[in-house]
Amino acid sequence: MAVYTDINEVELAAFLQEYRLGEMMSYKGIAEGSENSNFFLHTTVGTYILTLYERRVEVADLPFFLGLMQHLAQNGISCPLPVERRDGRLIGELAGRPAAIITFLEGVWVRRPTPAHCRAVGAALAALHLAGADFPLGRNNALSVDGWKRLWLQARPRADTFQAGLVEEIDAEFAAFERDWPSDLPSGIIHADLFPDNVFFLGDRLSGLIDFYFACNDIFAYDVATCLNAWCFEKDDAFNVTKGQAFLAGYQSVRRLEAAEREALPLLARGAALRFMLTRLYDWLTIPDGALVQKRDPSEFIRRLRFHRHVRAISEYGLGAS
Amino acid sequence: MAVYTDINEVELAAFLQEYRLGEMMSYKGIAEGSENSNFFLHTTVGTYILTLYERRVEVADLPFFLGLMQHLAQNGISCPLPVERRDGRLIGELAGRPAAIITFLEGVWVRRPTPAHCRAVGAALAALHLAGADFPLGRNNALSVDGWKRLWLQARPRADTFQAGLVEEIDAEFAAFERDWPSDLPSGIIHADLFPDNVFFLGDRLSGLIDFYFACNDIFAYDVATCLNAWCFEKDDAFNVTKGQAFLAGYQSVRRLEAAEREALPLLARGAALRFMLTRLYDWLTIPDGALVQKRDPSEFIRRLRFHRHVRAISEYGLGAS
Repeated sequence: MAVYTDINEVELAAFLQEYRLGEMMSYKGIAEGSENSNFFLHTTVGTYILTLYERRVEVADLPFFLGLMQHLAQNGISCPLPVERRDGRLIGELAGRPAAIITFLEGVWVRRPTPAHCRAVGAALAALHLAGADFPLGRNNALSVDGWKRLWLQARPRADTFQAGLVEEIDAEFAAFERDWPSDLPSGIIHADLFPDNVFFLGDRLSGLIDFYFACNDIFAYDVATCLNAWCFEKDDAFNVTKGQAFLAGYQSVRRLEAAEREALPLLARGAALRFMLTRLYDWLTIPDGALVQKRDPSEFIRRLRFHRHVRAISEYGLGAS
Repeated sequence: MAVYTDINEVELAAFLQEYRLGEMMSYKGIAEGSENSNFFLHTTVGTYILTLYERRVEVADLPFFLGLMQHLAQNGISCPLPVERRDGRLIGELAGRPAAIITFLEGVWVRRPTPAHCRAVGAALAALHLAGADFPLGRNNALSVDGWKRLWLQARPRADTFQAGLVEEIDAEFAAFERDWPSDLPSGIIHADLFPDNVFFLGDRLSGLIDFYFACNDIFAYDVATCLNAWCFEKDDAFNVTKGQAFLAGYQSVRRLEAAEREALPLLARGAALRFMLTRLYDWLTIPDGALVQKRDPSEFIRRLRFHRHVRAISEYGLGAS
């Protein structure tokens, strides 16, 4: 839940004059998104999302994020389209924060994904990987192995207070990553956070992808591994191989995974689980209890990490040998 | 900020089948309203607000609240219209809670009201008082003097820890109310919580009133007194007599205040200030610090109460003697 910054009608009306969007009809804070303040915005012209970027987002990265959305939307990916201001820019300032308006995307995010949803997500992820190919800007993944290590070194001194034995276990993970993390797999633009709340559906039909604020250049198969963590585990932490099979089949219906990518999946999936465990653990240890930010339990990703560590064959993810 | 209960797309789709509202297109939790969980809901037919009633609302009161909105909307007041289900009822159940769908009202609530806004609110409040006249249901005001006394007796043992001297001061207020609170003033349906966040505007034009979940039968002039507290003080706690004058002129352009109502205003305004001070103080002392509910400072209403206590003539509110 998140509206960190309230805005008043006077400053919003002035901000809207920078756009060709008519007159303000209504705006309401949305209780979604954990990094920025988001408002549903209705004008005489249409329906939009207004985002105020809070301190966790690097201002210097905004042209990449918004430019990417524009590029993807223009290349057949259903995602929000940033609205251009009268001066042609995509970013303005509101309430002392960088702010942008993007088109509103119909659809609901599914709290209970089915294999059909997983298949559609797989296909959409592969289409995104292909559509990003000729996007001219680039951005390093700040949350890959080096970034995890920095988070870990800050969390490590108190990690055993969260769960006994965690320091030894995660240190061993890093040793494996530093030895075996692949460097030569196909790579390009990845979403890097394609969890169910970032994918909209109308029934079983995928209507769009949102929230590109972790997008970056990295290994495609790492994005695949993130989705295995995000879409294919049940509430009781069991891996649902039917969903895994559906997701991977959907992905491969658009872009075939190479043999080296398939072989790397278990390690990449360990990394992806560790990445979400670490940001949650860091928040858990550093955000004061009284804060409005909801702290999420890191331990479900510890359990997923352990699952991937024991995967011996990619068939365990539902992937055929061929 | 409030979404206390999340809902999944499966149960929402089933719930929507009880209505003639077409297919679900999108729904998002709204970070507004402090008592219930509210969702913006878009279907193939239109745009609505879905409300899940949380434990602070008495289920037995819902037919009054929703019936009142229906009655007012049918009598020329711009307010949300509860949508009838296929079975004719206004209330269903979703995620284990009573739930209703009401029409979406365009407009924004003004963080910075001007005298023009205050005048429009005055006129709308008077129109509401007149339109409620033939509403057949009734509801006692649970938050009048007796209700305040119950809240006060729970907060009193720790009230001096919030502000030294508060026990003596508030005890004296209750002595005054028990002696002088009027019982024979014109009364009927009142809104009882008409703060700026419950009034929508398009520019200077009032587009509607929302949130009738404190509505009840009580003295009309008490509703007027609540609005003086809600609309006519500045951030520095100064009473803005221009806004007071505008609000009261707006009210009287629709319904003239009787002499007895005018004379009672300072005492009623003390009561209204005390009512909001007490609910905030009660929350302040009882809600744990880690809770997601935002606790609001009671002290601004202590200062308003003191202002009203020193009002000697109703002209201080901007009301002419005639």
